[in-house]
Amino acid sequence: MAVPTWLWVLLVLVLNGYGESKYVVYNTTSSIVPGKLNVHLVPHTHDDVGWLKTVDQYYVGSNNSIQGACVQYVLDSIVPALLADKNRKFIYVEQAFFQRWWRDQSEEVQSTVKKLVSSGQLELINGGWCMHDEAATHYIDMIDQTTLGHRYIKDQFNVTPRIGWQIDPFGHSAAQAYLLGAEVGFDSLFFGRIDYQDRAKRKDEKTLEVIWRGSKSLGSSSQIFAGAFPENYEPPSNFYYEVNDDSPIVQDNPDLFDYNVPHRVNEFVSAAISQANITRTNHVMWTMGTDFKYQYAHTWFRQMDKFIHYVNQDGRVNALYSTPSIYTDAKYATNEYWPLKNDDYFPYADRINAYWTGYFTSRPAIKGYVRMLSGYYLAARQLEFFKGKSKTGPTTDSLADALAIAQHHDAVTGTERQHVADDYAKRLSIGYTEAEGVVAASLACMTDLTSNTDCKSSSMNYCPSSEADLSKGKNLVIVVYNPLGWKREDVVKIPVINENVVVRDFRGKEIQSQLIPLLNISVSLRKFHTMAYLGKSPRVSPRYWLAFSATVPPLGFSTYIVSSAKGAAAISKRQLVYKSETSKNYKVSVGPGNLKLVYSGNDDKLTQYINSRSLSVEQSFSYYPGDDGSVDLQASGAYIFRPNGTHPIKTEGQVPLTIFRGPLLDEVHQRINSWIYQVTRLYKGKEHAEIEYTVGPIPIDDGIGKEIVTKLTSSVKNDKKFYTDSNGRDFIERIRDYRKDWNLEVNQPVAGNYYPINLGIYLKDNNTELSVLADRSVGGSSIVDGELELMLHRRLLCDDDRGVAEALNETVCIHDECKGLIILGKYYLRVDPTGEGAKWRRSFGQELYSPFLLAFTEQGGDNWTRSPVTTFFGMDPSYALPDNVAIITLQELENGEVLLRLAHLYEIGEDKDLSVMASVELKKVFANKKINKIEEMSLSANQQRAQMEKKRLVWKVEGSTEEPKVLRGGPVGPAKLVVELAPMEIRTFVINFYSKR
Amino acid sequence: MAVPTWLWVLLVLVLNGYGESKYVVYNTTSSIVPGKLNVHLVPHTHDDVGWLKTVDQYYVGSNNSIQGACVQYVLDSIVPALLADKNRKFIYVEQAFFQRWWRDQSEEVQSTVKKLVSSGQLELINGGWCMHDEAATHYIDMIDQTTLGHRYIKDQFNVTPRIGWQIDPFGHSAAQAYLLGAEVGFDSLFFGRIDYQDRAKRKDEKTLEVIWRGSKSLGSSSQIFAGAFPENYEPPSNFYYEVNDDSPIVQDNPDLFDYNVPHRVNEFVSAAISQANITRTNHVMWTMGTDFKYQYAHTWFRQMDKFIHYVNQDGRVNALYSTPSIYTDAKYATNEYWPLKNDDYFPYADRINAYWTGYFTSRPAIKGYVRMLSGYYLAARQLEFFKGKSKTGPTTDSLADALAIAQHHDAVTGTERQHVADDYAKRLSIGYTEAEGVVAASLACMTDLTSNTDCKSSSMNYCPSSEADLSKGKNLVIVVYNPLGWKREDVVKIPVINENVVVRDFRGKEIQSQLIPLLNISVSLRKFHTMAYLGKSPRVSPRYWLAFSATVPPLGFSTYIVSSAKGAAAISKRQLVYKSETSKNYKVSVGPGNLKLVYSGNDDKLTQYINSRSLSVEQSFSYYPGDDGSVDLQASGAYIFRPNGTHPIKTEGQVPLTIFRGPLLDEVHQRINSWIYQVTRLYKGKEHAEIEYTVGPIPIDDGIGKEIVTKLTSSVKNDKKFYTDSNGRDFIERIRDYRKDWNLEVNQPVAGNYYPINLGIYLKDNNTELSVLADRSVGGSSIVDGELELMLHRRLLCDDDRGVAEALNETVCIHDECKGLIILGKYYLRVDPTGEGAKWRRSFGQELYSPFLLAFTEQGGDNWTRSPVTTFFGMDPSYALPDNVAIITLQELENGEVLLRLAHLYEIGEDKDLSVMASVELKKVFANKKINKIEEMSLSANQQRAQMEKKRLVWKVEGSTEEPKVLRGGPVGPAKLVVELAPMEIRTFVINFYSKR
Repeated sequence: MAVPTWLWVLLVLVLNGYGESKYVVYNTTSSIVPGKLNVHLVPHTHDDVGWLKTVDQYYVGSNNSIQGACVQYVLDSIVPALLADKNRKFIYVEQAFFQRWWRDQSEEVQSTVKKLVSSGQLELINGGWCMHDEAATHYIDMIDQTTLGHRYIKDQFNVTPRIGWQIDPFGHSAAQAYLLGAEVGFDSLFFGRIDYQDRAKRKDEKTLEVIWRGSKSLGSSSQIFAGAFPENYEPPSNFYYEVNDDSPIVQDNPDLFDYNVPHRVNEFVSAAISQANITRTNHVMWTMGTDFKYQYAHTWFRQMDKFIHYVNQDGRVNALYSTPSIYTDAKYATNEYWPLKNDDYFPYADRINAYWTGYFTSRPAIKGYVRMLSGYYLAARQLEFFKGKSKTGPTTDSLADALAIAQHHDAVTGTERQHVADDYAKRLSIGYTEAEGVVAASLACMTDLTSNTDCKSSSMNYCPSSEADLSKGKNLVIVVYNPLGWKREDVVKIPVINENVVVRDFRGKEIQSQLIPLLNISVSLRKFHTMAYLGKSPRVSPRYWLAFSATVPPLGFSTYIVSSAKGAAAISKRQLVYKSETSKNYKVSVGPGNLKLVYSGNDDKLTQYINSRSLSVEQSFSYYPGDDGSVDLQASGAYIFRPNGTHPIKTEGQVPLTIFRGPLLDEVHQRINSWIYQVTRLYKGKEHAEIEYTVGPIPIDDGIGKEIVTKLTSSVKNDKKFYTDSNGRDFIERIRDYRKDWNLEVNQPVAGNYYPINLGIYLKDNNTELSVLADRSVGGSSIVDGELELMLHRRLLCDDDRGVAEALNETVCIHDECKGLIILGKYYLRVDPTGEGAKWRRSFGQELYSPFLLAFTEQGGDNWTRSPVTTFFGMDPSYALPDNVAIITLQELENGEVLLRLAHLYEIGEDKDLSVMASVELKKVFANKKINKIEEMSLSANQQRAQMEKKRLVWKVEGSTEEPKVLRGGPVGPAKLVVELAPMEIRTFVINFYSKR
Repeated sequence: MAVPTWLWVLLVLVLNGYGESKYVVYNTTSSIVPGKLNVHLVPHTHDDVGWLKTVDQYYVGSNNSIQGACVQYVLDSIVPALLADKNRKFIYVEQAFFQRWWRDQSEEVQSTVKKLVSSGQLELINGGWCMHDEAATHYIDMIDQTTLGHRYIKDQFNVTPRIGWQIDPFGHSAAQAYLLGAEVGFDSLFFGRIDYQDRAKRKDEKTLEVIWRGSKSLGSSSQIFAGAFPENYEPPSNFYYEVNDDSPIVQDNPDLFDYNVPHRVNEFVSAAISQANITRTNHVMWTMGTDFKYQYAHTWFRQMDKFIHYVNQDGRVNALYSTPSIYTDAKYATNEYWPLKNDDYFPYADRINAYWTGYFTSRPAIKGYVRMLSGYYLAARQLEFFKGKSKTGPTTDSLADALAIAQHHDAVTGTERQHVADDYAKRLSIGYTEAEGVVAASLACMTDLTSNTDCKSSSMNYCPSSEADLSKGKNLVIVVYNPLGWKREDVVKIPVINENVVVRDFRGKEIQSQLIPLLNISVSLRKFHTMAYLGKSPRVSPRYWLAFSATVPPLGFSTYIVSSAKGAAAISKRQLVYKSETSKNYKVSVGPGNLKLVYSGNDDKLTQYINSRSLSVEQSFSYYPGDDGSVDLQASGAYIFRPNGTHPIKTEGQVPLTIFRGPLLDEVHQRINSWIYQVTRLYKGKEHAEIEYTVGPIPIDDGIGKEIVTKLTSSVKNDKKFYTDSNGRDFIERIRDYRKDWNLEVNQPVAGNYYPINLGIYLKDNNTELSVLADRSVGGSSIVDGELELMLHRRLLCDDDRGVAEALNETVCIHDECKGLIILGKYYLRVDPTGEGAKWRRSFGQELYSPFLLAFTEQGGDNWTRSPVTTFFGMDPSYALPDNVAIITLQELENGEVLLRLAHLYEIGEDKDLSVMASVELKKVFANKKINKIEEMSLSANQQRAQMEKKRLVWKVEGSTEEPKVLRGGPVGPAKLVVELAPMEIRTFVINFYSKR
């Protein structure tokens, strides 16, 4: 009674064909149909080079309890899926993964993959080692990591990636667009994340796709077609086909129940039309994939095969397998006009109150480590080049790999899980260690020509054995290397145990030095971290910093000798230690040279900056309590800066200033409270202040996460405007509570005005420029006129719900005892007359990036000065690069050729003297070698520049007027070998020398 | 300061090989190594033919939000995975899926798969349409569904499955072991679920693997090597490798972090040794897979490749790709002795208080539908054979498919989701509808030789058009078909509108008939369900049941004519309606024949059963409140019977009995309460009572689920013993609170004594047998001596946490108004002298399974009797099968041959007359045809019986004494063509006739 015969009437016919063979061949041959709406299905996987799991865990598919993801399987499964149907296409992006996989493959598979790449079925796009971040990355790192990937691709497949594919980074930089886009020869650039208000307007006005001119200096010569996706980089909803995904599959077997072809075709057509309604031309792109998908590529392709087959049978729209290259060419072929976009896409908010500006500062220790090693890597490659790259010994390659991985948009950003951050640090540490070996070997070779050629037996030490006890008659030899193309004088500081020491130059002449006592607080921090990270106590405790001024030739080194001071010899040059204390209402002026800082008031605050002129500048700390999400579920976290108020941090108690004065520098020590300590240094020859902060452990015993900022409050009338750099390259004007591209609705007056800083930030009015340079990437802003702020450290207790699912609460532990991470960092402050600040920001900024590299060796007696080489000139000793040019790459390649990159450091109009065409004489740069062949290359050195320019697409720009001719350096003549560089120009060469050394 | 260089010391060496090619070829060539522990890795997937999703949804991978599962992908991905390495192996089990997939494949893939099957890389085992349940299934259905799969496999691949693989069913039946195991030619049988107490003892004693003799009658001639897995049918923990599974992969790339080969090898070895400690011989099997796994086979094989490679390099144990066949042969080769197992593995508890005995009754409506259609399918195939199977028109194939699918261990069991239960019902309904077409066409052909040969234009109706108004001079012709091999007389009942009707036999002679009024309650139930399932009201409402006695030849039909009674003609034979009422303290005796039932007492209860002797029998209802899991999280649910007390159901109020008496039968109507109604029928010629219950909607307004039982309480002194059938075949002795194989710890005195009933249950003492037969599979027991109980219906509000994740709360709805499902069912009661009950249980049991099949046609005037054929004899009219034999299959195969199965219905010693060798004369069975060739086959008709017996493995049984020779029928001589059948023997033949009709 209870079991019915219902529904059979409707369904009995369905089973009629039951038992027959139903093999269906899907027609996927479709290509572009001009008269129709073309839906470009772009199969892709987005594989984070570390995020919730480490890069290796993602590759091999371990730790799946955290996230089910295995890149190896993606690539394993793509090959047969593409072979199964030659119309299928796939793009692959992250070379860190691809190269891991490539090395694991048989020659047979490699040969198959070569065919797939060569036929275009498998297209390698973006092609850097990772999909780098665009906010917390330095342009040199971006170039290096892109080059690493592009050259592998070129080498293995003889192809050059055509497309920029920055689909996930959290906002998009001008340097990305022009430098890592147009200058690497990309034909277009695609991305997923732009501000939600911006996106809404662009959808409305069909301006998601633009021509983007990222550089004022290089203008249309470096523009690129750039497309923001309508929503994200995923398929339209209900078109997800990973194993176990729950989008409805196309059930096209009439023998089975739930046949749904007409229904699914309708949904496809309707999604296509809705995208067409916000897109120019009759081409829309569907990004068919998302994070770590295509673990079994078959599941996606099988469904897409069906969609293409049935949708094209239906005929309302045309569906095809495509790639961003095919899509770009199709767009180009339409001859459409495109709107113009300048500047960048920062900051990024994905919804109200959700500004992704926290990650500009998240994990400041990693950010600092990356920046330090970035400069080190540059110098180490120079030294590796000078010695000749080793085939067997240590190389800089593992540091290259570690740094490249660290540029990933969940690495240096600080938006990874803690264990993944540890993994990045470990890789950097391993790479650094190996690179130190390279540096030591190179310097040993270069300083001692009598040693054997591999220089392995060298006693050169890259560790600061300066802590050695010199009282036993030993000398400490310090080799000071200058990676810049300019002669340079800087103060060198090394820790010493003994106060009774003298410093001599390579001629044996004693030079001025200065001792500064190491305070208890520094010693105990050193002990704590040595125990925490190495599990042991330091052998000895240095008692002083020994400072002296070193002068080093361009791309060269000088040597200095530190030894025990016997008797009263040369006492006049010995270090002096001053100590003074201020008391209430006393006004104190500090500075051994031209620049004086004045501290005064109840709390001994910095109040004035005085050199040729005087500016009132106050410096203070405050914190933003991190929102816990209790209002609208949006907490402050690793990605997002969501302050809940502002609180000034008062100096606790009345601990007075401590001032150490000396001939080379003065130091002002301020203990702000139990977890903020600050040292300000003024050097005799410099007109900037160096401010070193020690922040942490940030207290959380009140249950509130905190984001610590330092503020500089001046009388500059900047009228809402301030300037921040783009990846350390071009400066971009920022206007508080304002966006050039749309009418900003302000909901986060602080977080919504934060911008990433890699080089610096400055304010100006008609008279004065107030500039700050940072030692790592940080977030910063000007929330009030006259004020600059930098966010130095963040410790938060809530996750911000963007996937990382961990609070950004970094700690450091001895055994199981953990406390909040302590950050030690520096920034630099300078005041200039308006129009004159660039010189400091650019040239000193470059010195900051490339500090002196020190190496040490011990020697008995006085014989160092009799060493064969005490001074080294990498270039012609009479030659130096012009002040506006830096060598940003000098690297011996695997094949013995040399990669050279020269960068003009100034923007057009930035400086009246230096924003001009510069010239570099390669014959003098390589004075000891003879150039056999030189080829100018694309920025990533994977194709000839001329070829690249020839292929460049010329897009039509809406309402564009004729631009003035963009200034660019001319060709390098083979006889003269002079490289011209226009403002902001970077030129890349591969050089073949006649002989090695 | 904060970022350390820690750990580099340990790890710097790791990166040394970085950049080199690392392609590894894994050595998977291992085979059995005699001196070592051999770990047989058996890659498998367990694919439920419907459970949380429908069979089609599982196949195509739709509805993944319920469960991520796509069988299509499993089979898609297995092919390349096996091709990639010829040492890899895979088994596939469920032909319902495999055949769906097979039909979708190109000839190229089919040809590849044929090679894989023929090489043994892909082995098809178990091989039925599904992995049938073993408790709620009838042996005829088990045979049919196994035959369906086995014959496809034979046809496509020319192979016969060697292994029974019942890894998931919830307990294991004797009929499975001997009938669907040994008798289909399996060399072994494996399963995963046995009682946890049993398992513990078997692990301890190394008796998980046994020789199982399931049949007392067939003994060692039908024994099989049977292995219960140590835990389940999954891999050891931490060896799961589906996409995204989180078991640790083997990280064997020294260039990457987390290299773990030694660790994983140790874990492998240790898991192997721990299994070896509970297993005889040095062979252990690892079931490498589980539900719906291998969606991307590569992910499993890649890891297993590595394990085999590195474990064998390690050398402590020997790992190899294997199959249950290889494993069985290896076990056999050891020449080991094995313990003997009799009876079965019911009931199954997977832990304390968790007896899987609820599903014996769950979804009684589906269970009833399946049983009804099982008998119908048998009859329909006979009629299809008589007419000749149609190449174009309707066939019984879709009913075969639907019934086969319904035998799945989450189908007829009632342990599937509701929407899946609906899908099974829909399939059955579609199959039934098509089979009705076959039946109608066949009967039309057979009754009217003048119609064209395809008989399509027939007016034969399989619908009970008996409701037609006969007052307009029309006659209703009823064709009554008897699928049994015996002549048979039974009462036929049809609903009629008019009370003024007469029944005539095919000679035109009026016969005795009887009208019984249709009560309002029946009419309103009919209306309700018609509206609920068809969305409309019935056209007319019948007012009476018209009953008459039909006599039908074996495998033949008789016709009867119902027409309007004009005048007083034949009034003597007209139906009589009696109605009587009992009142308090009155004693009433009912029954038109030999058997009388006596009702008495305050509540008019049945009290006595009187025929030649008298037995006091009370009948009552009670319910078990379903435990809600609040005590130990184990609720009563679809699988598990977990009562929380017992409550008698009292008759509500004092509604008196209603009794209808007549010449053919008496009916006693009892309204127990608002949701239980009962009709007891006593037929003149029968000595059993038919009890029809209407139970539902079970009230749940008290928030408590309920499980309804009926109890028969007698004076039989059965001393804890009772007998239940195994899949409707052998009866097995059950002893309350006792297990033969281990010392039972009783924790569920009710649920732990429940057993599945498909045919019946009985008690006995020295004098009396009290037998009950059921119309469908139910759970039952004898909880108190003298008492039998059947669970009739279950409505539960909690899920029992075994995966279905839905409460078993069946409802029926009109629009959105739902109420609990109402079950209408029957059971049959009889009392016999001890030793004489089998005759009724076996022969009447077979009649119950194969009721008369009715067909109807209307005819004007009196001309039916002039129809060419009014009686049909399928066999020689003088012949009938012996009383102990039934034709359980008579089916025309695709190739025109005929499949015949004859079953001896009695066990050895069951009946003094009938438990003897029987003979069937095929020449008389097929009187109208001439046998060209006859081959005796295995039970599933996929190989010659003789071949099968020749291959049979002869296992050594521990402590086994010489058995008496098992009785089996001898070979069928081609001249005599007489088939001998020993007790419980089933013999299967494929017959080729000289000509088709």
